Amino acid sequence: MKVGILGSGMVGQTIALKLGKIGLEVMIGTRSPEKLADLAAQNPGLKVGSFSECAGFGELLFNASKGDASLDVIRSAGKENLAGKILVDIANPLDFSHGMPPTLFVGNTDSLAEQIQRILPETKVIKAFNTMAAAVMVEPRSLAGGDHSLFICGNDTEAKVRAAALFKDWFGWSDIIDIGDLSGARATEALLPLWIRLSMKLGPGAIQFKIMR
Amino acid sequence: MKVGILGSGMVGQTIALKLGKIGLEVMIGTRSPEKLADLAAQNPGLKVGSFSECAGFGELLFNASKGDASLDVIRSAGKENLAGKILVDIANPLDFSHGMPPTLFVGNTDSLAEQIQRILPETKVIKAFNTMAAAVMVEPRSLAGGDHSLFICGNDTEAKVRAAALFKDWFGWSDIIDIGDLSGARATEALLPLWIRLSMKLGPGAIQFKIMR
Repeated sequence: MKVGILGSGMVGQTIALKLGKIGLEVMIGTRSPEKLADLAAQNPGLKVGSFSECAGFGELLFNASKGDASLDVIRSAGKENLAGKILVDIANPLDFSHGMPPTLFVGNTDSLAEQIQRILPETKVIKAFNTMAAAVMVEPRSLAGGDHSLFICGNDTEAKVRAAALFKDWFGWSDIIDIGDLSGARATEALLPLWIRLSMKLGPGAIQFKIMR
Repeated sequence: MKVGILGSGMVGQTIALKLGKIGLEVMIGTRSPEKLADLAAQNPGLKVGSFSECAGFGELLFNASKGDASLDVIRSAGKENLAGKILVDIANPLDFSHGMPPTLFVGNTDSLAEQIQRILPETKVIKAFNTMAAAVMVEPRSLAGGDHSLFICGNDTEAKVRAAALFKDWFGWSDIIDIGDLSGARATEALLPLWIRLSMKLGPGAIQFKIMR
Protein backbone atom coordinates (compact mmCIF):
# COMPACT_ATOMS: atom_id res chain seq x y z
CA MET A 1 0.00 0.00 0.00
CA LYS A 2 1.17 3.52 -0.83
CA VAL A 3 0.85 6.08 1.94
CA GLY A 4 1.37 9.84 1.66
CA ILE A 5 2.29 11.96 4.67
CA LEU A 6 1.49 15.66 4.29
CA GLY A 7 3.92 17.45 6.61
CA SER A 8 7.56 16.80 7.35
CA GLY A 9 7.81 17.75 11.02
CA MET A 10 8.47 15.35 13.85
CA VAL A 11 5.00 13.79 13.66
CA GLY A 12 5.15 13.26 9.90
CA GLN A 13 8.65 11.80 10.05
CA THR A 14 7.73 9.44 12.90
CA ILE A 15 4.77 8.02 10.98
CA ALA A 16 6.71 7.85 7.70
CA LEU A 17 9.64 5.95 9.21
CA LYS A 18 7.36 3.51 11.05
CA LEU A 19 5.32 2.73 7.93
CA GLY A 20 8.51 2.37 5.86
CA LYS A 21 9.90 -0.04 8.44
CA ILE A 22 6.88 -2.34 8.16
CA GLY A 23 7.24 -2.42 4.39
CA LEU A 24 4.84 0.18 2.99
CA GLU A 25 5.73 2.60 0.21
CA VAL A 26 5.81 6.05 1.77
CA MET A 27 6.17 9.58 0.44
CA ILE A 28 6.50 12.66 2.63
CA GLY A 29 4.97 15.80 1.15
CA THR A 30 6.69 19.05 2.05
CA ARG A 31 7.04 22.65 0.95
CA SER A 32 10.85 22.29 0.99
CA PRO A 33 11.95 18.84 -0.27
CA GLU A 34 15.63 19.92 -0.14
CA LYS A 35 15.44 20.13 3.68
CA LEU A 36 14.69 16.40 3.83
CA ALA A 37 17.71 15.35 1.76
CA ASP A 38 19.53 13.91 4.79
CA LEU A 39 16.47 12.00 6.00
CA ALA A 40 15.91 10.57 2.53
CA ALA A 41 19.60 9.62 2.20
CA GLN A 42 19.45 7.75 5.51
CA ASN A 43 16.23 5.96 4.55
CA PRO A 44 16.65 4.75 0.96
CA GLY A 45 13.02 3.64 0.53
CA LEU A 46 11.55 6.95 1.65
CA LYS A 47 10.23 9.22 -1.07
CA VAL A 48 10.00 12.99 -0.75
CA GLY A 49 7.88 15.26 -2.91
CA SER A 50 5.68 18.33 -3.04
CA PHE A 51 2.29 18.31 -1.32
CA SER A 52 0.53 17.62 -4.62
CA GLU A 53 2.98 14.85 -5.62
CA CYS A 54 2.46 13.26 -2.21
CA ALA A 55 -1.33 13.53 -2.46
CA GLY A 56 -1.27 11.96 -5.92
CA PHE A 57 1.07 9.17 -4.78
CA GLY A 58 -0.75 8.05 -1.64
CA GLU A 59 -3.69 5.67 -1.66
CA LEU A 60 -4.20 6.75 1.95
CA LEU A 61 -3.00 10.07 3.34
CA PHE A 62 -2.10 11.54 6.73
CA ASN A 63 -2.36 15.25 7.43
CA ALA A 64 0.60 15.74 9.76
CA SER A 65 1.07 19.43 9.03
CA LYS A 66 0.88 22.06 11.76
CA GLY A 67 -2.73 23.04 12.46
CA ASP A 68 -2.33 26.67 11.47
CA ALA A 69 -0.84 25.60 8.10
CA SER A 70 -3.18 22.67 7.41
CA LEU A 71 -5.76 24.41 5.23
CA ASP A 72 -3.01 25.85 2.98
CA VAL A 73 -1.31 22.44 2.82
CA ILE A 74 -4.58 20.74 1.88
CA ARG A 75 -5.26 23.30 -0.86
CA SER A 76 -1.70 22.84 -2.19
CA ALA A 77 -2.18 19.06 -2.14
CA GLY A 78 -5.15 19.52 -4.49
CA LYS A 79 -8.61 18.17 -3.96
CA GLU A 80 -8.50 16.24 -7.24
CA ASN A 81 -5.47 14.31 -5.93
CA LEU A 82 -7.34 13.41 -2.73
CA ALA A 83 -10.80 12.60 -4.11
CA GLY A 84 -12.13 9.20 -3.04
CA LYS A 85 -9.20 8.60 -0.67
CA ILE A 86 -9.00 8.35 3.11
CA LEU A 87 -7.25 11.32 4.74
CA VAL A 88 -6.34 10.78 8.40
CA ASP A 89 -6.20 14.24 9.98
CA ILE A 90 -3.97 14.32 13.05
CA ALA A 91 -3.41 18.09 13.22
CA ASN A 92 -4.63 20.34 16.02
CA PRO A 93 -5.89 23.92 15.74
CA LEU A 94 -3.39 25.27 18.28
CA ASP A 95 -2.79 29.00 18.61
CA PHE A 96 0.50 29.73 20.39
CA SER A 97 0.31 33.49 19.76
CA HIS A 98 -0.70 34.16 23.37
CA GLY A 99 1.97 31.90 24.91
CA MET A 100 1.65 28.61 26.77
CA PRO A 101 -0.62 26.81 27.14
CA PRO A 102 -1.98 27.47 23.64
CA THR A 103 -5.63 28.21 22.86
CA LEU A 104 -7.60 26.74 19.93
CA PHE A 105 -8.27 28.82 16.81
CA VAL A 106 -11.42 26.84 16.03
CA GLY A 107 -13.67 24.82 18.33
CA ASN A 108 -16.99 24.22 20.07
CA THR A 109 -19.24 24.59 16.98
CA ASP A 110 -16.64 23.67 14.33
CA SER A 111 -13.27 21.89 14.08
CA LEU A 112 -10.15 21.81 11.95
CA ALA A 113 -11.15 18.39 10.60
CA GLU A 114 -14.51 19.74 9.45
CA GLN A 115 -12.80 22.74 7.83
CA ILE A 116 -10.60 20.29 5.90
CA GLN A 117 -13.61 18.14 4.97
CA ARG A 118 -15.37 21.21 3.53
CA ILE A 119 -12.38 21.85 1.25
CA LEU A 120 -12.33 18.15 0.26
CA PRO A 121 -15.98 17.09 -0.12
CA GLU A 122 -15.03 13.90 -2.00
CA THR A 123 -12.37 12.77 0.48
CA LYS A 124 -13.07 10.50 3.46
CA VAL A 125 -11.63 12.60 6.28
CA ILE A 126 -11.02 10.75 9.54
CA LYS A 127 -9.85 12.47 12.71
CA ALA A 128 -7.47 10.34 14.78
CA PHE A 129 -4.19 10.37 16.73
CA ASN A 130 -4.44 14.08 17.61
CA THR A 131 -4.63 13.42 21.36
CA MET A 132 -1.17 11.90 21.90
CA ALA A 133 2.55 12.22 21.24
CA ALA A 134 3.96 11.00 17.90
CA ALA A 135 5.93 8.16 19.50
CA VAL A 136 2.71 6.82 21.05
CA MET A 137 0.75 7.03 17.77
CA VAL A 138 3.01 4.45 16.11
CA GLU A 139 4.03 2.46 19.22
CA PRO A 140 1.05 2.52 21.60
CA ARG A 141 2.67 -0.19 23.72
CA SER A 142 5.49 2.23 24.56
CA LEU A 143 3.15 3.91 27.10
CA ALA A 144 1.46 1.93 29.92
CA GLY A 145 1.76 -1.25 27.87
CA GLY A 146 -0.71 0.11 25.29
CA ASP A 147 -3.52 0.32 27.86
CA HIS A 148 -5.15 3.53 26.59
CA SER A 149 -7.61 4.76 23.97
CA LEU A 150 -7.52 5.99 20.38
CA PHE A 151 -10.53 8.10 19.32
CA ILE A 152 -11.59 8.12 15.69
CA CYS A 153 -14.45 9.88 13.95
CA GLY A 154 -15.55 10.57 10.40
CA ASN A 155 -18.60 10.69 8.16
CA ASP A 156 -17.88 7.48 6.18
CA THR A 157 -18.42 4.37 8.32
CA GLU A 158 -16.73 1.97 5.90
CA ALA A 159 -13.64 4.17 5.77
CA LYS A 160 -13.49 4.25 9.58
CA VAL A 161 -13.72 0.46 9.81
CA ARG A 162 -10.95 0.12 7.24
CA ALA A 163 -8.75 2.73 8.91
CA ALA A 164 -9.21 1.19 12.36
CA ALA A 165 -8.13 -2.20 10.98
CA LEU A 166 -5.02 -0.60 9.49
CA PHE A 167 -4.14 1.22 12.74
CA LYS A 168 -4.42 -2.09 14.59
CA ASP A 169 -2.32 -3.89 12.00
CA TRP A 170 0.36 -1.22 11.50
CA PHE A 171 0.80 0.07 15.05
CA GLY A 172 -0.83 -2.49 17.38
CA TRP A 173 -3.75 -0.39 18.60
CA SER A 174 -6.35 -2.29 20.60
CA ASP A 175 -8.77 0.19 22.24
CA ILE A 176 -10.04 2.17 19.23
CA ILE A 177 -13.26 4.08 20.01
CA ASP A 178 -15.45 5.35 17.14
CA ILE A 179 -17.10 8.51 18.50
CA GLY A 180 -19.33 9.10 15.48
CA ASP A 181 -19.35 11.55 12.59
CA LEU A 182 -16.63 14.11 11.90
CA SER A 183 -18.17 16.67 14.25
CA GLY A 184 -16.64 14.47 16.96
CA ALA A 185 -13.39 16.23 16.08
CA ARG A 186 -14.75 19.21 18.03
CA ALA A 187 -14.62 16.97 21.10
CA THR A 188 -11.19 15.39 20.51
CA GLU A 189 -9.47 18.60 19.40
CA ALA A 190 -10.83 20.07 22.66
CA LEU A 191 -8.76 17.54 24.63
CA LEU A 192 -5.54 19.30 23.69
CA PRO A 193 -5.68 22.03 26.34
CA LEU A 194 -5.78 19.34 29.06
CA TRP A 195 -3.24 17.13 27.29
CA ILE A 196 -0.78 20.03 27.06
CA ARG A 197 -1.28 21.06 30.70
CA LEU A 198 -0.71 17.49 31.84
CA SER A 199 2.33 17.16 29.58
CA MET A 200 3.78 20.34 31.08
CA LYS A 201 3.28 18.85 34.53
CA LEU A 202 3.93 15.13 34.14
CA GLY A 203 6.43 15.12 31.26
CA PRO A 204 6.15 15.93 27.56
CA GLY A 205 4.28 13.25 25.66
CA ALA A 206 4.29 10.93 28.65
CA ILE A 207 0.53 10.82 29.18
CA GLN A 208 -2.44 9.34 27.38
CA PHE A 209 -6.20 9.26 27.81
CA LYS A 210 -7.97 6.02 28.58
CA ILE A 211 -11.72 5.71 28.71
CA MET A 212 -12.70 3.51 31.63
CA ARG A 213 -16.09 1.79 31.51
CA MET B 1 -17.87 19.92 59.33
CA LYS B 2 -20.76 21.89 57.82
CA VAL B 3 -21.14 21.62 54.05
CA GLY B 4 -23.44 23.68 51.84
CA ILE B 5 -24.63 22.42 48.47
CA LEU B 6 -25.82 25.15 46.10
CA GLY B 7 -28.26 23.45 43.75
CA SER B 8 -30.91 20.82 44.42
CA GLY B 9 -30.82 18.77 41.22
CA MET B 10 -29.66 15.19 40.95
CA VAL B 11 -25.97 16.12 41.40
CA GLY B 12 -26.61 18.27 44.47
CA GLN B 13 -28.85 15.66 46.06
CA THR B 14 -26.35 12.87 45.42
CA ILE B 15 -23.53 14.78 47.14
CA ALA B 16 -25.77 15.95 49.99
CA LEU B 17 -27.05 12.45 50.79
CA LYS B 18 -23.56 10.93 50.66
CA LEU B 19 -22.08 13.58 52.97
CA GLY B 20 -25.03 13.21 55.35
CA LYS B 21 -24.53 9.46 55.39
CA ILE B 22 -20.91 9.81 56.53
CA GLY B 23 -21.95 12.11 59.35
CA LEU B 24 -21.44 15.67 58.09
CA GLU B 25 -23.95 18.48 58.64
CA VAL B 26 -25.37 19.33 55.23
CA MET B 27 -27.66 22.04 53.88
CA ILE B 28 -28.97 22.15 50.33
CA GLY B 29 -29.49 25.66 48.98
CA THR B 30 -32.33 26.06 46.50
CA ARG B 31 -34.60 28.63 44.95
CA SER B 32 -37.66 26.59 45.96
CA PRO B 33 -37.19 24.94 49.39
CA GLU B 34 -40.82 23.70 49.32
CA LYS B 35 -39.97 21.36 46.43
CA LEU B 36 -37.50 19.50 48.67
CA ALA B 37 -40.00 18.84 51.47
CA ASP B 38 -40.21 15.12 50.63
CA LEU B 39 -36.43 14.71 50.44
CA ALA B 40 -35.98 16.52 53.76
CA ALA B 41 -38.73 14.43 55.39
CA GLN B 42 -37.01 11.22 54.25
CA ASN B 43 -33.61 12.43 55.46
CA PRO B 44 -34.11 13.94 58.91
CA GLY B 45 -30.57 15.35 59.23
CA LEU B 46 -30.71 17.17 55.91
CA LYS B 47 -31.25 20.92 56.04
CA VAL B 48 -32.81 22.92 53.23
CA GLY B 49 -32.53 26.68 52.83
CA SER B 50 -32.18 29.55 50.40
CA PHE B 51 -28.93 30.02 48.49
CA SER B 52 -27.79 32.70 50.96
CA GLU B 53 -28.74 30.63 54.02
CA CYS B 54 -26.83 27.70 52.54
CA ALA B 55 -23.77 29.84 51.75
CA GLY B 56 -23.78 31.24 55.29
CA PHE B 57 -24.19 27.76 56.82
CA GLY B 58 -21.44 25.90 54.95
CA GLU B 59 -17.79 26.00 55.96
CA LEU B 60 -17.15 24.44 52.56
CA LEU B 61 -19.50 24.81 49.59
CA PHE B 62 -20.28 22.94 46.39
CA ASN B 63 -21.70 24.68 43.34
CA ALA B 64 -23.98 21.96 41.97
CA SER B 65 -26.32 24.29 40.11
CA LYS B 66 -26.86 24.05 36.36
CA GLY B 67 -24.13 25.88 34.46
CA ASP B 68 -26.42 28.39 32.82
CA ALA B 69 -27.86 29.33 36.25
CA SER B 70 -24.60 29.27 38.21
CA LEU B 71 -23.70 32.96 38.06
CA ASP B 72 -27.18 33.94 39.28
CA VAL B 73 -27.03 31.31 42.03
CA ILE B 74 -23.61 32.56 43.16
CA ARG B 75 -24.84 36.17 43.25
CA SER B 76 -27.92 35.08 45.27
CA ALA B 77 -25.67 33.15 47.65
CA GLY B 78 -23.85 36.40 48.40
CA LYS B 79 -20.13 36.98 48.19
CA GLU B 80 -19.98 38.04 51.86
CA ASN B 81 -21.35 34.60 52.84
CA LEU B 82 -18.68 32.85 50.78
CA ALA B 83 -15.62 34.98 51.59
CA GLY B 84 -12.63 32.99 52.83
CA LYS B 85 -14.33 29.64 52.13
CA ILE B 86 -13.61 26.87 49.66
CA LEU B 87 -16.19 26.61 46.87
CA VAL B 88 -15.96 23.42 44.81
CA ASP B 89 -17.42 24.25 41.40
CA ILE B 90 -18.72 21.16 39.62
CA ALA B 91 -20.99 22.89 37.08
CA ASN B 92 -20.46 22.87 33.34
CA PRO B 93 -21.17 25.68 30.85
CA LEU B 94 -23.43 23.53 28.66
CA ASP B 95 -25.66 25.13 26.07
CA PHE B 96 -28.44 22.76 24.99
CA SER B 97 -30.22 25.39 22.89
CA HIS B 98 -28.95 23.83 19.65
CA GLY B 99 -29.83 20.25 20.63
CA MET B 100 -27.58 17.29 21.41
CA PRO B 101 -24.71 17.13 21.89
CA PRO B 102 -24.59 20.50 23.68
CA THR B 103 -21.99 23.20 22.98
CA LEU B 104 -20.22 25.30 25.63
CA PHE B 105 -21.30 28.88 26.33
CA VAL B 106 -17.82 29.82 27.56
CA GLY B 107 -14.46 28.21 26.80
CA ASN B 108 -11.00 28.33 25.28
CA THR B 109 -9.89 31.68 26.77
CA ASP B 110 -12.20 31.67 29.82
CA SER B 111 -14.26 29.22 31.88
CA LEU B 112 -17.32 29.09 34.10
CA ALA B 113 -15.09 28.55 37.15
CA GLU B 114 -13.12 31.71 36.36
CA GLN B 115 -16.36 33.67 35.88
CA ILE B 116 -17.43 32.52 39.35
CA GLN B 117 -14.03 33.39 40.82
CA ARG B 118 -14.30 36.92 39.42
CA ILE B 119 -17.64 37.37 41.25
CA LEU B 120 -16.09 35.92 44.44
CA PRO B 121 -12.56 37.34 44.67
CA GLU B 122 -12.20 36.33 48.33
CA THR B 123 -13.41 32.74 47.87
CA LYS B 124 -11.10 29.81 47.14
CA VAL B 125 -12.76 28.41 44.01
CA ILE B 126 -11.72 24.89 43.04
CA LYS B 127 -12.92 23.18 39.88
CA ALA B 128 -13.46 19.45 40.33
CA PHE B 129 -15.86 16.57 39.60
CA ASN B 130 -17.28 18.19 36.44
CA THR B 131 -16.03 15.39 34.16
CA MET B 132 -18.12 12.50 35.52
CA ALA B 133 -21.58 11.33 36.54
CA ALA B 134 -22.87 12.21 40.02
CA ALA B 135 -22.85 8.59 41.20
CA VAL B 136 -19.15 8.34 40.33
CA MET B 137 -18.24 11.60 42.11
CA VAL B 138 -19.25 10.17 45.49
CA GLU B 139 -18.53 6.47 44.81
CA PRO B 140 -15.54 6.34 42.47
CA ARG B 141 -15.17 2.59 43.11
CA SER B 142 -18.56 2.06 41.47
CA LEU B 143 -16.87 2.43 38.06
CA ALA B 144 -13.89 0.26 37.03
CA GLY B 145 -13.03 -0.31 40.68
CA GLY B 146 -12.12 3.34 41.10
CA ASP B 147 -9.31 3.10 38.54
CA HIS B 148 -9.74 6.57 36.94
CA SER B 149 -8.78 10.20 37.48
CA LEU B 150 -10.19 13.27 39.23
CA PHE B 151 -8.86 16.60 37.95
CA ILE B 152 -8.72 19.57 40.30
CA CYS B 153 -7.50 23.11 39.76
CA GLY B 154 -7.61 26.40 41.62
CA ASN B 155 -5.53 29.43 42.51
CA ASP B 156 -5.00 28.60 46.20
CA THR B 157 -2.59 25.70 46.66
CA GLU B 158 -3.37 25.12 50.33
CA ALA B 159 -7.10 24.96 49.59
CA LYS B 160 -6.47 22.38 46.85
CA VAL B 161 -4.40 20.20 49.18
CA ARG B 162 -7.12 20.39 51.83
CA ALA B 163 -9.92 19.68 49.33
CA ALA B 164 -8.06 16.72 47.82
CA ALA B 165 -7.62 15.21 51.29
CA LEU B 166 -11.36 15.63 51.94
CA PHE B 167 -12.32 14.05 48.58
CA LYS B 168 -10.10 11.08 49.41
CA ASP B 169 -11.55 10.79 52.92
CA TRP B 170 -15.22 11.34 52.04
CA PHE B 171 -15.49 9.48 48.74
CA GLY B 172 -12.40 7.25 48.44
CA TRP B 173 -10.69 9.03 45.56
CA SER B 174 -7.14 7.87 44.86
CA ASP B 175 -5.94 9.35 41.53
CA ILE B 176 -6.44 13.10 42.09
CA ILE B 177 -4.46 15.20 39.60
CA ASP B 178 -3.79 18.88 40.33
CA ILE B 179 -3.63 20.56 36.91
CA GLY B 180 -2.64 23.98 38.20
CA ASP B 181 -4.40 27.31 38.61
CA LEU B 182 -8.08 27.90 37.95
CA SER B 183 -7.53 28.53 34.23
CA GLY B 184 -7.22 24.73 34.10
CA ALA B 185 -11.02 24.74 34.23
CA ARG B 186 -10.90 25.77 30.55
CA ALA B 187 -9.29 22.38 29.90
CA THR B 188 -11.56 20.22 32.09
CA GLU B 189 -14.81 21.96 31.09
CA ALA B 190 -13.68 21.26 27.49
CA LEU B 191 -13.82 17.51 28.21
CA LEU B 192 -17.61 17.59 28.36
CA PRO B 193 -18.25 17.39 24.63
CA LEU B 194 -16.31 14.12 24.48
CA TRP B 195 -17.78 12.82 27.74
CA ILE B 196 -21.31 13.43 26.46
CA ARG B 197 -20.64 11.81 23.07
CA LEU B 198 -19.17 8.74 24.77
CA SER B 199 -22.06 8.61 27.24
CA MET B 200 -24.52 8.70 24.33
CA LYS B 201 -22.65 5.78 22.76
CA LEU B 202 -21.49 3.65 25.68
CA GLY B 203 -24.21 4.37 28.25
CA PRO B 204 -25.12 7.45 30.28
CA GLY B 205 -22.63 8.11 33.06
CA ALA B 206 -20.91 4.80 32.48
CA ILE B 207 -17.54 6.20 31.40
CA GLN B 208 -14.69 7.99 33.06
CA PHE B 209 -11.34 9.48 32.02
CA LYS B 210 -8.12 8.00 33.26
CA ILE B 211 -4.74 9.55 32.62
CA MET B 212 -2.25 6.82 31.80
CA ARG B 213 1.43 7.55 32.33
